[in-house]
Amino acid sequence: MELDEFSLENAKRLLDEKKYADLRKMLMDVPAADIAEMFEEIPKNQFAILYRILPKELAADVFVELDPDFQKVLIEAFSDKELREVLDELYMDDTVDLVEEMPANVVKRILANSSAEDRKTVNELLKYPEDSAGSIMTTEFVRLKEDMTVREAFALIRKVAIDKETIYTCYVTDNRSHLIGMVTVKYLLLSDYEAKIKDIMQDNVISVKTLDDKEDVAATISKYDVLALPVVDEENRLVGIVTVDDAIDVMQDEAEEDFAKMNAMAPVETPYLRTPVFSLWRSRIIWLLLLMVSATFTGMIISSFEDALRAQVVLTAFIPMLMDTGGNSGSQASVTIIRAISLGEVEFADIVKIIWKEIRVAFLCGISLGVVTFGKIFLVDKLLMHREITVPVALVVCLTLCITVLCAKLLGCTLPMIVAKLGFDPAVMASPFITTIVDAVSLLVYFAFATMFLRL
Amino acid sequence: MELDEFSLENAKRLLDEKKYADLRKMLMDVPAADIAEMFEEIPKNQFAILYRILPKELAADVFVELDPDFQKVLIEAFSDKELREVLDELYMDDTVDLVEEMPANVVKRILANSSAEDRKTVNELLKYPEDSAGSIMTTEFVRLKEDMTVREAFALIRKVAIDKETIYTCYVTDNRSHLIGMVTVKYLLLSDYEAKIKDIMQDNVISVKTLDDKEDVAATISKYDVLALPVVDEENRLVGIVTVDDAIDVMQDEAEEDFAKMNAMAPVETPYLRTPVFSLWRSRIIWLLLLMVSATFTGMIISSFEDALRAQVVLTAFIPMLMDTGGNSGSQASVTIIRAISLGEVEFADIVKIIWKEIRVAFLCGISLGVVTFGKIFLVDKLLMHREITVPVALVVCLTLCITVLCAKLLGCTLPMIVAKLGFDPAVMASPFITTIVDAVSLLVYFAFATMFLRL
Repeated sequence: MELDEFSLENAKRLLDEKKYADLRKMLMDVPAADIAEMFEEIPKNQFAILYRILPKELAADVFVELDPDFQKVLIEAFSDKELREVLDELYMDDTVDLVEEMPANVVKRILANSSAEDRKTVNELLKYPEDSAGSIMTTEFVRLKEDMTVREAFALIRKVAIDKETIYTCYVTDNRSHLIGMVTVKYLLLSDYEAKIKDIMQDNVISVKTLDDKEDVAATISKYDVLALPVVDEENRLVGIVTVDDAIDVMQDEAEEDFAKMNAMAPVETPYLRTPVFSLWRSRIIWLLLLMVSATFTGMIISSFEDALRAQVVLTAFIPMLMDTGGNSGSQASVTIIRAISLGEVEFADIVKIIWKEIRVAFLCGISLGVVTFGKIFLVDKLLMHREITVPVALVVCLTLCITVLCAKLLGCTLPMIVAKLGFDPAVMASPFITTIVDAVSLLVYFAFATMFLRL
Repeated sequence: MELDEFSLENAKRLLDEKKYADLRKMLMDVPAADIAEMFEEIPKNQFAILYRILPKELAADVFVELDPDFQKVLIEAFSDKELREVLDELYMDDTVDLVEEMPANVVKRILANSSAEDRKTVNELLKYPEDSAGSIMTTEFVRLKEDMTVREAFALIRKVAIDKETIYTCYVTDNRSHLIGMVTVKYLLLSDYEAKIKDIMQDNVISVKTLDDKEDVAATISKYDVLALPVVDEENRLVGIVTVDDAIDVMQDEAEEDFAKMNAMAPVETPYLRTPVFSLWRSRIIWLLLLMVSATFTGMIISSFEDALRAQVVLTAFIPMLMDTGGNSGSQASVTIIRAISLGEVEFADIVKIIWKEIRVAFLCGISLGVVTFGKIFLVDKLLMHREITVPVALVVCLTLCITVLCAKLLGCTLPMIVAKLGFDPAVMASPFITTIVDAVSLLVYFAFATMFLRL
């Protein structure tokens, strides 16, 4: 049963009225993710009470879904025994996430309450670089041997299933842990009980390396529609697996990061309503400052053409339109290319094809916009604003528009490719940055044409 | 074995040299998604040859991964017998996708070569509105009865597994097809063979309705970390399931659409390099035109302050900086809110909280930017450009900047909320649109302050 608005209010009332038995009964069948959301709506001093009402296994599932801040509050309220019980229920990747998020004193308590073996695994997993496959993998998977029968495999799966994050894909290793094959439970079910694993296993297994980028791992899971991918070390020894639910999280985080970067923000990990004002300010101000300061160039360009502007003030009226259209044209190209890069649709070798395509698109866009602007200038602008607009002025505006669109599209497609080729994140090359450059280019073109054709 | 650059070249060579036996042997173990990519690199007249080289089951898997354009080429080359073989291997949701993408004459052939039962199912699935859960679900899932034993359930699963998209989550229905429970294969494996399904099944099943938005379905799958979700009709009868791989596709498409809309483009479904120039132009020109025409307002504002500008041309130099900073500030807020809406983090009831938060962020950003600008004007601009910049001019610029940032953040957070409340897609309210409005606002504020403080 999902926890809707109504039952959430009910649950909070039961908690306030200390009707714990009723609350426990009510929450028994509620999914952990919904109970975790309930923590966002109750005061911190009720956290431990709500947590202790839950059956042990559900409580651990809820714990995993909680925000690190909330986990910290709970751990501080836990006895050592309770902490050990939670840690027992957690999968290794969740324990590692926890250790990474907690302050030093909490980490110390977590490690002190883990078994020696778990401590060793956690320490090993912590060594993988952030954003690597190793940092998101879990070490709990089903490992089969090639001379087992299907019957023996099922016996093993039955025995270990409760502790494994996924049992549906089983991996076959040799005596030195090398990954030599893979078999799904579906295939096991379709096979004869006496068949040998080595005869039914798929021996060309798609795997990733511990140091591979986690985004590539997620993309691989999505491309091949698999429920899990094995992670191997440099010697092809199987060290862990990444499951599809973790891949989904990686993809979502990645999209959010790109949205933020493409709009001149540093990514923020917490949900909007819970992000402090100061953190939002910090994530936004750096880029705003940088882009504002770089607008000094556009100011300088305008200043150096002050005389032209004084002679033909009407030219000023078209500056915002030229800048905005240039900015929009550029960001259309840059966003398209940045996403194509991050989805692996294009690579640096395609740059000539891309430039040629964008030139043609820019040509079509520039012509359409130029023609419409020319008409608009005489049908709207001349009547509404400037009786003195002449054909040469209109031509200068339209020509500038065409050239600006062309430059914007070219910059928008090439800069992200070059930045990516240099090993940086192309997302920072998105609209705001392109806009700043295109602004300068469009003003330079504008004043160049104006001086040329209007004899200023 | 994945198909890397090298083996891809090898495969193309074998195909060209008509060494079909070698090619077949080479491709036997290659994942379908990789072979599908090979089709992008070979001429259309080799499509049918490459397809026929593949073992039947692999061929069908490859077919599903292909672009609709390529599927059409293949179907036109197929004999009726070949078409029937492919259709036999396809899951229902893939068949429906195919029927939706193909032209009428191909659809006719597909339906003529389907069994009466399949034709009926396809016709029913086609009735669900685009973007609904019904439109992406499949009808092939494992259906158990509550009085079965675990042993009987396994016997059933073994019998039907080969035809089902996923067997790992089995659904329990009563005699009238109502969804009454759910059990995973993992749980079946952990249970006693003689246990009754009704005693081990989970009876509070999270389900979605046929008409639910497919993005909500994907979000639910992600939230609860499940491999599949049951889809029920208005009477709670189980009619299909949505699997996690389809949910991933929905999430990716959704993110791409948002990227496009937020950057003033109509979404394009084909990969960039295969999208014709004309389609790219069409997806971009409408918004460019709309935004360009709406920039008429900024032009009008500047025109009506022509005299002020003629008197103080230095004011023109700061227009680009004010507009860009306003635009960036606004899109920071709008993108943050639009994503928070689409991730379900905020709803309309939160609007006061959001406005209050953005006011504080805007205050911090405005002050920081204002102070830096004031310094920059005297340390950089005055020395580089305008010896005549006075303290009042600098104050007008800095004050305008603060007010612009405030207006931009307020518009950026409220407009998407209002648009979403009205039932439209908030993504179209993103940066370009906000920018156009903020441009006008910042110019009005600028000239108002200028007239007030500089006595123009």
